[in-house]
Amino acid sequence: METASRERICELSRHFHQLGWMRGTGGGVCLRDGDRVYLAPSGRLKDELIPDDLFVLSLAGEVLESPPSATGAKVSACAPLFLAAIEQAHAGCVIHGHPVSSVLATELSTDAFRVREFEMIKGIRGHGFFDELMVPILDNTSHEHELEAPFRACLRQHPNTQAVLVRRHGIYVWGEDSTEAKRQAECLEWLFEAVVGVRRLGL
Amino acid sequence: METASRERICELSRHFHQLGWMRGTGGGVCLRDGDRVYLAPSGRLKDELIPDDLFVLSLAGEVLESPPSATGAKVSACAPLFLAAIEQAHAGCVIHGHPVSSVLATELSTDAFRVREFEMIKGIRGHGFFDELMVPILDNTSHEHELEAPFRACLRQHPNTQAVLVRRHGIYVWGEDSTEAKRQAECLEWLFEAVVGVRRLGL
Amino acid sequence: METASRERICELSRHFHQLGWMRGTGGGVCLRDGDRVYLAPSGRLKDELIPDDLFVLSLAGEVLESPPSATGAKVSACAPLFLAAIEQAHAGCVIHGHPVSSVLATELSTDAFRVREFEMIKGIRGHGFFDELMVPILDNTSHEHELEAPFRACLRQHPNTQAVLVRRHGIYVWGEDSTEAKRQAECLEWLFEAVVGVRRLGL
Amino acid sequence: METASRERICELSRHFHQLGWMRGTGGGVCLRDGDRVYLAPSGRLKDELIPDDLFVLSLAGEVLESPPSATGAKVSACAPLFLAAIEQAHAGCVIHGHPVSSVLATELSTDAFRVREFEMIKGIRGHGFFDELMVPILDNTSHEHELEAPFRACLRQHPNTQAVLVRRHGIYVWGEDSTEAKRQAECLEWLFEAVVGVRRLGL
Repeated sequence: METASRERICELSRHFHQLGWMRGTGGGVCLRDGDRVYLAPSGRLKDELIPDDLFVLSLAGEVLESPPSATGAKVSACAPLFLAAIEQAHAGCVIHGHPVSSVLATELSTDAFRVREFEMIKGIRGHGFFDELMVPILDNTSHEHELEAPFRACLRQHPNTQAVLVRRHGIYVWGEDSTEAKRQAECLEWLFEAVVGVRRLGL
Repeated sequence: METASRERICELSRHFHQLGWMRGTGGGVCLRDGDRVYLAPSGRLKDELIPDDLFVLSLAGEVLESPPSATGAKVSACAPLFLAAIEQAHAGCVIHGHPVSSVLATELSTDAFRVREFEMIKGIRGHGFFDELMVPILDNTSHEHELEAPFRACLRQHPNTQAVLVRRHGIYVWGEDSTEAKRQAECLEWLFEAVVGVRRLGL
Repeated sequence: METASRERICELSRHFHQLGWMRGTGGGVCLRDGDRVYLAPSGRLKDELIPDDLFVLSLAGEVLESPPSATGAKVSACAPLFLAAIEQAHAGCVIHGHPVSSVLATELSTDAFRVREFEMIKGIRGHGFFDELMVPILDNTSHEHELEAPFRACLRQHPNTQAVLVRRHGIYVWGEDSTEAKRQAECLEWLFEAVVGVRRLGL
Repeated sequence: METASRERICELSRHFHQLGWMRGTGGGVCLRDGDRVYLAPSGRLKDELIPDDLFVLSLAGEVLESPPSATGAKVSACAPLFLAAIEQAHAGCVIHGHPVSSVLATELSTDAFRVREFEMIKGIRGHGFFDELMVPILDNTSHEHELEAPFRACLRQHPNTQAVLVRRHGIYVWGEDSTEAKRQAECLEWLFEAVVGVRRLGL
C-alpha cells in the first residue's frame, strides 16, 4: 500500500500534467491511507515526480516522513486545503490543478459555476442529467494557506460539494479514492470546456 | 481471438480516452466475436482498463463471463445500445464517447447534424465528397437505458447510418470491425471540429 | 535502407496521426529511395502501420512489392500525387494530411494561402521572415486521382512551391528528405494555426 | 554531469516539441555546466535529438566540441541570445520556442505583455498574485543574430526579467537551472493561453 500510494501519486501527477492541470510545478495530488497522507513537495515539476519525492503527513498535518531524495524540500502549500477536504469532506484523494478552462469558468461566473443538462454532470457524485451542478467559487488570495479559512467555511456551507473553484487560480476536486477523484476531475474539466465552447459559438 | 479482443478493447479505450472521448469513466467500446460481445464494466477509468476487467455478453445481453478482477462490477450502461447496433446495424464494433466537439455539434443542429463537401465525409461508409452526410440526433434521457427505445427506432428509420448523436451527451458510432469503427469515429470527430471551427471564424 | 525507409514511414505516420493530420485512415507518407518509392496501402489506420504493410512502387507507379501482411491491399489513392511531387518537385518525401487548421486556412483564402512576417515562414525553403509565403489552393474533386492533372499543372505553374493545399480537404507538402518534409509540414501547420488564431481574436 | 546535461537537453526538447514550442526544427534549449554550454545544432528536428547531436560552447561562444553524429552541422542560430542570457541574466538553462499562444500574446500587446491576478504569475521568480508581470517584446529581425543587440539592451533595461518575447516569432525564457526554466516556460505559456482565452470570450 505504501509503495502503491507513492506510485499512484506519481502516475496521477503525470496524467494531470499532461492534461494541463499541473504546468509549471503547480497543482498537486494527495492520497490518504488510514492515518497517513501522501503528498508531493512544493515547487517540483509534477511530470518528473518519483516515489521518493513524497512527504507523509499525519491527518493533523505533522510531517511523519520527509523525502530522502531532496534536502530542504518543503511540504506543498496545498497541504492545509488537502487536509481540510480529507477531514470535512471525507476525501481519500484530492487533486488540485490549474486547467485554463477552469479559470475561464471562474471568469464567466460570480459566486459559483452552475450548469445543467450535460451528460458529464452524471459523473459528479449524487447528480443526474437534469440536476443543476453547482461548484462554489472562492476569491483567490496572495498565499495558498490564506485560502484555508474560506475553504473550510465553504465546505461547511456546501457539505456535499465534490469540488471548489478558486477565481483566476484553479480547482480543488476530490473523491473517496483516486478513481472517484480522477473521474470527477475529468468530468468537471469537460464541463468547463463545454460551457466555454458553447459560449464561444455565441449560443 | 479471445485475448486479442480483450486487448483490442483496452487499446481502443486508451486511444479514445486520449482523444477526449472517454474522460471521467464515460464512454466505452464493445467488440463482437461470433456469439460473444466483449465490453467494459460500468464506472471504470477507460485509460486504466486491463483485459481481465471485461464482461462477455451473449447477443441477447446475458452475462456469459464476469471480470475476475472486480467484485460487484456492473455491465456498462451502454450495453443495450451496443447490442442494438450489433443487431440492427450489423456492427462488429461500437464506440461510445463524449468528445466536446460532438456536443457542440448537437447544439448547432436540431434533428440531425448535416454536412457537405469536406474530405473526411469520404471516411463514412457509402459517402462521397459531394454527398450530404447526415447523423441523426436523439434527445438525451436521465438514464442510458431509456435511450434504447428511441435508439432502436432511429436505426429503423435510418438503416444505413453509421452513427447516432445524443444531444448534450455524445455519440455512438460503429463499423463492421474495430478498424471501420475507429475510422468512422475519427472522421466524425474531425467533421465536428471543422464545422465548429468554420463557425467560430464567422464564416 | 530498406528497413530504415519502412520504419521511418511508420514513425512519421504515428507522428502525424498524433498531430491530427491522419485521422480516420486519411493522409499518408511516401519516401523515395533511388528508383523505389515506399508508401502505405489505402484505408489503413495510420497510427497502426507496421513496416510490412507498405507497398514499393517504381517511379512510374508500377507495384514492385505488395505487402505480405494483407491480401487485397490497395495502393493509397495519394500515389499519383506523391509520384508527381517526386517527379516534378524532386521530392524525396511527401506528406499528405488533413489537419483541421489547413482546411480552415483554405476557407479563409481564395486561390492561395498567403502570409508574411511570422518566424515559421523561415522554415519553408527559400523564405525569409519578410518574404510572402504563398501556398496554392486547388479545388477538391470526388476522387483523389482526379486531382492529379490540376496538381501537375499547379507544380508547373509554381515550380518552387513546397506544398499544395486542397480546399476543404487538406495539404500535400514535401522536401528533399523526410527531415525537410516534416519540418515544412510542421511549419505550415503552425502558420495555419497562427493565422486562424489571429483571426479569431478579431485582429 | 556531461551525460546528464546531454540527456536533459534531449528530454526537454522532446517535452517542448510536444507542447508545440519546437515544431519544424524551431526553438532550442541550452544548459550551462560551469564553463561549458551544451546546445543543439541548427535545423535539427527537436523531437529526434540524441545526446551526440549537441555542441559544446565556451561562455564566449567558441566551439569546444562538435557533434560526432553529423558532418556539416552548424551551431544553432539561437546561440548568441542564449549566451547573452547566461552572461547578463545568470541563466543556467535557456529555452527558446514558438508556442502559437506566445505569438498571439505579442499581437495583443505593444512594447510588453502585461498581466495581473492569475495564479500562474506566482510561478515567475519574484512575483506574487497581485503583482504585475511584465515581459518585454522585441520586434523581430530577418536573422536571429540581429536580435542579439536589442536582446542585450533589453536585459540591461530589465535586469530582473525572466523572459523576452519576440513579435510574431516566439519567446526566450530561462532560469538558474532546467527546473526553473521549465517552470517559468510552462507558466508563461499558461498565462498567454489564459489571456487569449479570456479575450476570445469577449470578456
